[in-house]
Amino acid sequence: MRILVLNGPNLNLLGLREPGVYGAVTLDQIKSSMLALAGELGVELDFFQSNHEGALIDRLHEARDNFSAVIFNPGAHTHYSYALRDAVAAISIPVIEVHLSNIYTREEFRRHSVIAPVAAGQVSGFGAAGYLLALRAAVDLKPEYHSI
Amino acid sequence: MRILVLNGPNLNLLGLREPGVYGAVTLDQIKSSMLALAGELGVELDFFQSNHEGALIDRLHEARDNFSAVIFNPGAHTHYSYALRDAVAAISIPVIEVHLSNIYTREEFRRHSVIAPVAAGQVSGFGAAGYLLALRAAVDLKPEYHSI
Amino acid sequence: MRILVLNGPNLNLLGLREPGVYGAVTLDQIKSSMLALAGELGVELDFFQSNHEGALIDRLHEARDNFSAVIFNPGAHTHYSYALRDAVAAISIPVIEVHLSNIYTREEFRRHSVIAPVAAGQVSGFGAAGYLLALRAAVDLKPEYHSI
Amino acid sequence: MRILVLNGPNLNLLGLREPGVYGAVTLDQIKSSMLALAGELGVELDFFQSNHEGALIDRLHEARDNFSAVIFNPGAHTHYSYALRDAVAAISIPVIEVHLSNIYTREEFRRHSVIAPVAAGQVSGFGAAGYLLALRAAVDLKPEYHSI
Amino acid sequence: MRILVLNGPNLNLLGLREPGVYGAVTLDQIKSSMLALAGELGVELDFFQSNHEGALIDRLHEARDNFSAVIFNPGAHTHYSYALRDAVAAISIPVIEVHLSNIYTREEFRRHSVIAPVAAGQVSGFGAAGYLLALRAAVDLKPEYHSI
Amino acid sequence: MRILVLNGPNLNLLGLREPGVYGAVTLDQIKSSMLALAGELGVELDFFQSNHEGALIDRLHEARDNFSAVIFNPGAHTHYSYALRDAVAAISIPVIEVHLSNIYTREEFRRHSVIAPVAAGQVSGFGAAGYLLALRAAVDLKPEYHSI
Amino acid sequence: MRILVLNGPNLNLLGLREPGVYGAVTLDQIKSSMLALAGELGVELDFFQSNHEGALIDRLHEARDNFSAVIFNPGAHTHYSYALRDAVAAISIPVIEVHLSNIYTREEFRRHSVIAPVAAGQVSGFGAAGYLLALRAAVDLKPEYHSI
Amino acid sequence: MRILVLNGPNLNLLGLREPGVYGAVTLDQIKSSMLALAGELGVELDFFQSNHEGALIDRLHEARDNFSAVIFNPGAHTHYSYALRDAVAAISIPVIEVHLSNIYTREEFRRHSVIAPVAAGQVSGFGAAGYLLALRAAVDLKPEYHSI
Amino acid sequence: MRILVLNGPNLNLLGLREPGVYGAVTLDQIKSSMLALAGELGVELDFFQSNHEGALIDRLHEARDNFSAVIFNPGAHTHYSYALRDAVAAISIPVIEVHLSNIYTREEFRRHSVIAPVAAGQVSGFGAAGYLLALRAAVDLKPEYHSI
Amino acid sequence: MRILVLNGPNLNLLGLREPGVYGAVTLDQIKSSMLALAGELGVELDFFQSNHEGALIDRLHEARDNFSAVIFNPGAHTHYSYALRDAVAAISIPVIEVHLSNIYTREEFRRHSVIAPVAAGQVSGFGAAGYLLALRAAVDLKPEYHSI
Amino acid sequence: MRILVLNGPNLNLLGLREPGVYGAVTLDQIKSSMLALAGELGVELDFFQSNHEGALIDRLHEARDNFSAVIFNPGAHTHYSYALRDAVAAISIPVIEVHLSNIYTREEFRRHSVIAPVAAGQVSGFGAAGYLLALRAAVDLKPEYHSI
Amino acid sequence: MRILVLNGPNLNLLGLREPGVYGAVTLDQIKSSMLALAGELGVELDFFQSNHEGALIDRLHEARDNFSAVIFNPGAHTHYSYALRDAVAAISIPVIEVHLSNIYTREEFRRHSVIAPVAAGQVSGFGAAGYLLALRAAVDLKPEYHSI
Repeated sequence: MRILVLNGPNLNLLGLREPGVYGAVTLDQIKSSMLALAGELGVELDFFQSNHEGALIDRLHEARDNFSAVIFNPGAHTHYSYALRDAVAAISIPVIEVHLSNIYTREEFRRHSVIAPVAAGQVSGFGAAGYLLALRAAVDLKPEYHSI
Repeated sequence: MRILVLNGPNLNLLGLREPGVYGAVTLDQIKSSMLALAGELGVELDFFQSNHEGALIDRLHEARDNFSAVIFNPGAHTHYSYALRDAVAAISIPVIEVHLSNIYTREEFRRHSVIAPVAAGQVSGFGAAGYLLALRAAVDLKPEYHSI
Repeated sequence: MRILVLNGPNLNLLGLREPGVYGAVTLDQIKSSMLALAGELGVELDFFQSNHEGALIDRLHEARDNFSAVIFNPGAHTHYSYALRDAVAAISIPVIEVHLSNIYTREEFRRHSVIAPVAAGQVSGFGAAGYLLALRAAVDLKPEYHSI
Repeated sequence: MRILVLNGPNLNLLGLREPGVYGAVTLDQIKSSMLALAGELGVELDFFQSNHEGALIDRLHEARDNFSAVIFNPGAHTHYSYALRDAVAAISIPVIEVHLSNIYTREEFRRHSVIAPVAAGQVSGFGAAGYLLALRAAVDLKPEYHSI
Repeated sequence: MRILVLNGPNLNLLGLREPGVYGAVTLDQIKSSMLALAGELGVELDFFQSNHEGALIDRLHEARDNFSAVIFNPGAHTHYSYALRDAVAAISIPVIEVHLSNIYTREEFRRHSVIAPVAAGQVSGFGAAGYLLALRAAVDLKPEYHSI
Repeated sequence: MRILVLNGPNLNLLGLREPGVYGAVTLDQIKSSMLALAGELGVELDFFQSNHEGALIDRLHEARDNFSAVIFNPGAHTHYSYALRDAVAAISIPVIEVHLSNIYTREEFRRHSVIAPVAAGQVSGFGAAGYLLALRAAVDLKPEYHSI
Repeated sequence: MRILVLNGPNLNLLGLREPGVYGAVTLDQIKSSMLALAGELGVELDFFQSNHEGALIDRLHEARDNFSAVIFNPGAHTHYSYALRDAVAAISIPVIEVHLSNIYTREEFRRHSVIAPVAAGQVSGFGAAGYLLALRAAVDLKPEYHSI
Repeated sequence: MRILVLNGPNLNLLGLREPGVYGAVTLDQIKSSMLALAGELGVELDFFQSNHEGALIDRLHEARDNFSAVIFNPGAHTHYSYALRDAVAAISIPVIEVHLSNIYTREEFRRHSVIAPVAAGQVSGFGAAGYLLALRAAVDLKPEYHSI
Repeated sequence: MRILVLNGPNLNLLGLREPGVYGAVTLDQIKSSMLALAGELGVELDFFQSNHEGALIDRLHEARDNFSAVIFNPGAHTHYSYALRDAVAAISIPVIEVHLSNIYTREEFRRHSVIAPVAAGQVSGFGAAGYLLALRAAVDLKPEYHSI
Repeated sequence: MRILVLNGPNLNLLGLREPGVYGAVTLDQIKSSMLALAGELGVELDFFQSNHEGALIDRLHEARDNFSAVIFNPGAHTHYSYALRDAVAAISIPVIEVHLSNIYTREEFRRHSVIAPVAAGQVSGFGAAGYLLALRAAVDLKPEYHSI
Repeated sequence: MRILVLNGPNLNLLGLREPGVYGAVTLDQIKSSMLALAGELGVELDFFQSNHEGALIDRLHEARDNFSAVIFNPGAHTHYSYALRDAVAAISIPVIEVHLSNIYTREEFRRHSVIAPVAAGQVSGFGAAGYLLALRAAVDLKPEYHSI
Repeated sequence: MRILVLNGPNLNLLGLREPGVYGAVTLDQIKSSMLALAGELGVELDFFQSNHEGALIDRLHEARDNFSAVIFNPGAHTHYSYALRDAVAAISIPVIEVHLSNIYTREEFRRHSVIAPVAAGQVSGFGAAGYLLALRAAVDLKPEYHSI
C-alpha cells in the first residue's frame, strides 16, 4: 500500500512561519514521524510540497495509478482552488484533508473549504499529530470506499 | 487517564437510522471497539448518550473534575446549540468533535458547526473509525493544551 | 391503525396564550374533537405534549414501532431544532406537520421550518381544524409512502 | 355554497409531466374525486385552469361575488406573481393554497410562496389528496373568517 | 425533423429596440437565415413569438408531440418566469436557450437565468448568429438526450 | 400631444379593493379628473388597464408611434416584470411611473421597482392626485428628454 | 398656507456641481420658479439650505408650529440620516421628498432612502420641475393627512 | 410583590467559568446581594437555574400566576431559543432580560437576542450589578405595563 | 463625582414627539428626577442635548477631563454614527448607553447599535426610568473599569 | 485565420474523469473532430492544455499577435481566476468560452463565471459538440468585433 | 500651488486617543513635518480639522476656487458620510484620502470607504508618514487629472 | 538596504493593455524611474514579475533573508489569492501593496483585497507614481515595524 502526502503553499515554511499559529515543528520532522508510523503500519509513503496550484494538480493526476490514498493539506488553496477540488474529484482514490490549526478559531475565510465536499474525511486542529491520524485513517479506509 | 465519550441526539438510533448515510454500525459496536483500543492505550472510558441538550450540558459540567478529555459527537446540536458551545468553552479540559459522515457533502446547514470554534480539533467523514482516531488524538494531546 | 399526536413547546397554554393569534380553543378541546373524528374513522390516537426538545425526540423514537403516523405541531422548535428534524427523518413512519396560525403572516423567523423538508406534508393556518385535516391526511396516506 | 377550484400554469399536464415528482393522477381525476366529495358535503364546485397569469387574476376578480371560497394551486406562479397575491388580497373571500408535492424537499426557489401571506391557509405534500383536504377546510371555515 | 423557434417578450422589436445593445438585425431577417440553414441541414422550422408568458407556455406544451427540439430565447422572462421553466421541464424534448447579447456584461439581474437549469444547453453573446449555432446544436443532439 | 395612461393588474378594482390602503376613489373617477386637467392643459389622453402582462407590453409597443409619453402604474408588476421593464426601455418615449400608496411604508418587496431604472421619473404616495402630478410632469418634459 | 422648502447637503452647488447629472439650473432659479407658482397658488414659501444635518433637524423642529407642509430634498442624507428621518416622523406636518435625478439609474446606495418610509410622498427624476410638482402636491394634500 | 430570578444554561458555573469574561462573582453571591436589596425594597424573590430549555419554559409558565415579574438571564439560549421567546410572550407578566457581559463586544452571534423583542427591557454589560439594576427596574414597572 | 448626561437628536422633542412610542415625559422632567436621585446618591450632574453630531463629539471630548462617566442616549445616531463611536472609544471614562423604548420591537434598523461595542453597558426599554438605572449603574462602576 | 484552442485544469483527464458528468470523449478525440471541421472551414488550429493558471495566462498573452480568436474552456478556473479574466480582457482578440456540461444543473459555485463578462460569447451544455459550435462562432465573428 | 489638509472627527485627539492604534504623534506634529516638506517642495498648505460633517463639507466647497488639491483624512466619516462623498465629487480639484492605520486589519466596518470611489487615490497604513506621501502625491498629480 | 519590487499577473503587458484604465507607461519605464529614485535614496532594488502565483510565493519566501521590504502589486491575485496572503504573512519583512488604478471606481470584485489585512500599508490610484510613493514609504518604515 502506497500513500501520497501532499502539502500545498507555504507549508515549506512550517516551523519558521507564524509559530504561534502553526507550531515549531518543521515539515521534515512531520515527515520523519510519519515514516516511523508508516513503517509500523507497513505502508510506503511519498512526499510532495509545492507552492504552485498547477504542480499540485499534476501530482494528484499522477497519483491515480500509483497510490491507494492521498493525505492532503492544501494550505490556503483550501479556500478557493476549485481546480484542486476538481482534481481530487477526478481521481478515484480517497483524499484525506488535514489542517494543522483549528481553522474555525481563525479568520472567517478559513472556515470554508472548497475541497471538503469531495474529500474522504477531514482532520483538523491537532497540529503535526493530525498527519499521523490521517495516516491511520488512510490505512483503515475500506477498499470499497468511494470519495463521494 | 479517563476520557468521556459523549453522544448527542439521535445517535442512539445509529445503525438503525438512515444506514445509507450513517452506516450499519451501532453505538454499542462503536463502544466495544473503543474499549478495545482504550485497553491497548491504557486509558479508561465513560460513555453517555442523550437526546436532551440540558443533560449533555450537565454531563460536560461534571466532566470538568473527573476526565482528562471529552470525545463529543453533538449530532444535530452541532449546528445551533450555543448553550453546548458555552459548556464546552466553560470547562478546562479539551473536547474533540467527531462526525460520522462527511458533513460537507450534505445539506447546507450541516456545514456550520457552532461547537468547532471552541473544540480542540475535529475528525469527520470516517464513519465509526472516526471515534478511534479521536481517542488516539485525545491520548496524544499535550498536557499544556488549551482549548482556545 | 394508531396515530401519535405530538405537540411541542408552549402548546399546553393553548387558549390561554395570545388568543388573538392562536384562538381560544384549548389543547383538551382539540383532543376531544380529534377523538370524535378518530372514532368515526376507526383509528386509535395517542397524545403527548412537552416543552422539552429531548422528550419530544425520545417520543418520536418510541413511535417507530408503535404507530403508523405522527401528527406533529413542533411549536417554536419548528424554526431551529435540527435535532427534531433528524428524529423525524430517522423513523420510518410519516410525520405530518401542523401549524395553527398562518405562519407566513407573522414574524420573519416563523416562515422557515427546518422540519418541513423531512415531513410527509404540512397543514397550516386553519386553527384547531388543521389537526382534523391532518388526521384525515394521516389515515389516507398510501402504505407505500416514504417520508422523503 | 359554491367553491372555485383554480389551477395555475402547467397543471393541465398533471399525470403527464414529471410523474416522479407530481404523481400519475390527472387533473380530470382530481376533478372527479372532488366532485364526489362535494356532493357528499353538499357544495357546488367550479373549475378553471390557465397558463396565463392575467386569466387567473381575472377569474379571481369574478369570484368575489359568486363564490364562498377559492381552492388555489398557483403552480410556479406561487414563487413570483405578486400580481396574483394582490388579486387574492383584493377579494374578500378566503383563498386556500394547495401544493401537490412537498415544496420544501425541492429546489430552493420553491420554498418561498408570495401567495402564502395572504392565503387563508396552506396544504402541501399530500398529492391529489391535498385538494380534498382543502375542500373540507374551505367548507369548515368560519363565516367571520378574514383572509388577513 | 421539426424544430420550434420560440421568441419571448419584446423580441418582435428586434432591430428597432436599443440597436446599440441588440444589433440592427430584425426577427424576420433571423428567420430567413435560419430557414436557409434549415434547408441545408434538411430540417423543418416553425416560428412563434409572443409577449404573453401564458402563450409561450401553451406553445411549449403543444410542442411536446410535434417537434424534436425547441430553440428558445425567453427574453426578459429568462430572469423570473418559473412557470416557463416548469413548462420546459414538463416536456420531454430538448430546449436550447439562446441570448443575443452577452448577458454577463449587462445589469446584474440579467446574469441569472431560471430557465438554464432545465435547458439542454445555452448559446449567448453571438447576436443573430447564435440562432444558427443553436440550430446546428439542436440537429446534432443525440437521440438519447435527456433535458435534465 | 397625446398621452397614454396605462394601469396594470388589480387596478380595475380600485375603490373596491383594500380601501384602507388604496383609498375609495375608483379608476373611473381618476379618469374623469385626468380628462378635466388634460382639457385644461390641451392634451389628449388614452386609457388602458389590463391584468395581463403581455397585453401591457403589446400596448407599450403600440404607443411608440402614437403617443408622446406614457403615465404608467404597473401595479404589482412593478416588483418583478423585467419584460415590462424591457418594453419601457425599448420604446423611445418617456414613461412616468405612478404609485397610489407610499410603497416605502408597506411590505419589503414593494420597495423595489424593476421599472424605475428605465422610467423618466416617479411619483408615489399622493393617492389619486399622483396621476394629475404625473400628467403635469409629462406635459412639461423637455422635448430632448431621453428615458435613460 | 405656508410651506418650507428645505434643501440638504451640496444642493447649494446646484448648477455648478456635476451638471451632467444634476442639470445647469441653480438653486436660486428653482426658488424663483417656485415663488412664481406659489403666488399663483396663493401660498407662502420659506427656503433653507444647509450642509449640516443638525441644522436641518433644528429647522424641521421649528417648522412644526409655523408651516403646513415641508418640501424636502435631503441630498445624500437621504441614504443614511436616521436622525433626519426621526425628525420628519416627530413633527405632525407632511413632508414631501424630492430628488432631482432619477435615483434608480445611479449608484446602488442611492436607491435606498431612509426618509421615504416617513415621508408623505416622493417625486423624483424630473429635475428642477420636481420642486414645482411637489409644491402642487403639498397644496393639494388633504387636511386629515397623516404622514404614516 | 414576588419576582422570579431565572438563570439559563452554564450560569451555574458563574465565577468558575471564563472569569476573564464573566467575572469572579458566583451565582450564590449574586443571590445574596439581590436578597439584600429585595429586603430593602420590600419584595420577595425566588431563584431558579437550569441548563434545560424545557425546564426554563415550564418555570416561566408556572410564573404566570405566582409572580409579578421575571428577571431572566437566558445565557446562550438568548441567541436561538424561539421556544423560550414564545414562553416569555405567552405569559402576561413582564420579563426583564439581563446579560453580565457587554454582548456587543464579543462574537457576532452574541449580538442577536431572540428574546429581546418580547422582553420588557434589557440591562447588559454591568456584570453582577446588572441583576440589581434589573430588580429595581422590575419594582418600578408601572402596573399597566404590557410586554409588547 | 460628576456625571455628564448627553442626549442626541430629536430628544429635545421628548413628550411631544410620538408619545405612543416614547411616552409623555419631557426631557425636563427626566432631568428633575435625575437631579433628585443624584442628590440622594451624592453626585453632580451636567446635561447637554444637541441635534448636531459634531456638537455631541465636541462635548464627549471635553468630558474626558471633567467627568467620571457619561450617560448617553444617542437617539438615531445610535445606528450609524461611527464618528460618535470613535469619540466614545477615544475618551477614557465609561459611557453608558440608554434607550427609552425597547429598540428590538421596532424597525429593523433600530436593532443595530454602532455605539454598543464601545459602551460600558446598555439599558433599554424602561422609558424615563432607564436614565435613573443608568445613573445608579454609573455610580456603582468600579474604578478599575475599562470601557473595552 | 488561426485560432487557439485553450483548455484549463483537469481537462487532460477528459473521458477518464467522472464520465457521468463529462462524457467519455477524450481531449484527443475533440481535437480530431475540430481539426476535421477546421479543414472544412479553412482555418488553422493550435491546441494547448495546462493545469497551471500562469501557463494559461502566458499563452493568452502570446496569442495576441498570432491568432484571430481563442476558444477557451477554463475548467474550474472559470469560477475564481480573475487573473485569467484580466488576461482575456488584456488581449484584443475575441475569446469564446466553452463548457462541456450544463453548469447550471450542478453545484452552486459553478453557476458563476468570472470570465464571462469579458468573453465574446459562451456555449455550454452540448458536450464535445460545444467546441465545434464555438469554432463556427469564432470563424463567423465580424472583423469589427470588440470583446467588451 | 496651495493644498488644503483636511482632518475629520476625533483627529484632534491624535496622540492622546488609543495610541496603541493611532500612534503617539499629535496633529500638530504632523502639521510641522508637513510644513517642512511643503517648504522643500515649494507649496503652501492650509489646515482644517472639525468634528462636524457640515463644516467639512463647507470647507470642501470653499476649496474649489482656492486650492489645487485636498489631502483628506475623513476619520470615521469615511464609512458612512455620502454627503462628504458628494462634496468631494462636486468640486473639480483632486482629493487624496489618507488613513493613519491599516484599516483592513481592524473592525469590519472600517474596510469600506464611501469616499474612495470619488477620491484621486488613497494612502493608508503608514501612520503620520502617510500625510507626507499624500503631499508628494498631490504635488505630482498631472494637471489634466480628473477625479473620476 | 535592499527592496524587492514584485509584480503579479498581466503587469508585463502594462502600457499595452487597456491603456484607458492603466495608462501608457510600461513596466520598464516604471523600473527606470524607480531606479533613479532608489539611487537618490541610497537603496538597492530587485525586480520580479510573473503570471504564476506559485512563482510569486516562491519569490516572497526567498525575500525573507535578502530584503528589507517588498513593494508588491499583486494584480488580479489581490482579490482571491489567500496563498499569496499567507506568504506575505509568513515572512517577517514589511510588504507594501500598490495598485495603479483607483480600485474603488471599478468592478465590485476589485474593491476587496485579501492581501491588505497583512500588508504594511497600501497606495492606490496614482498610476506609475504610486510605485515611487511606495518606495519612499518602504525606506521610511521604522525598524521596529511589524506587518500586523
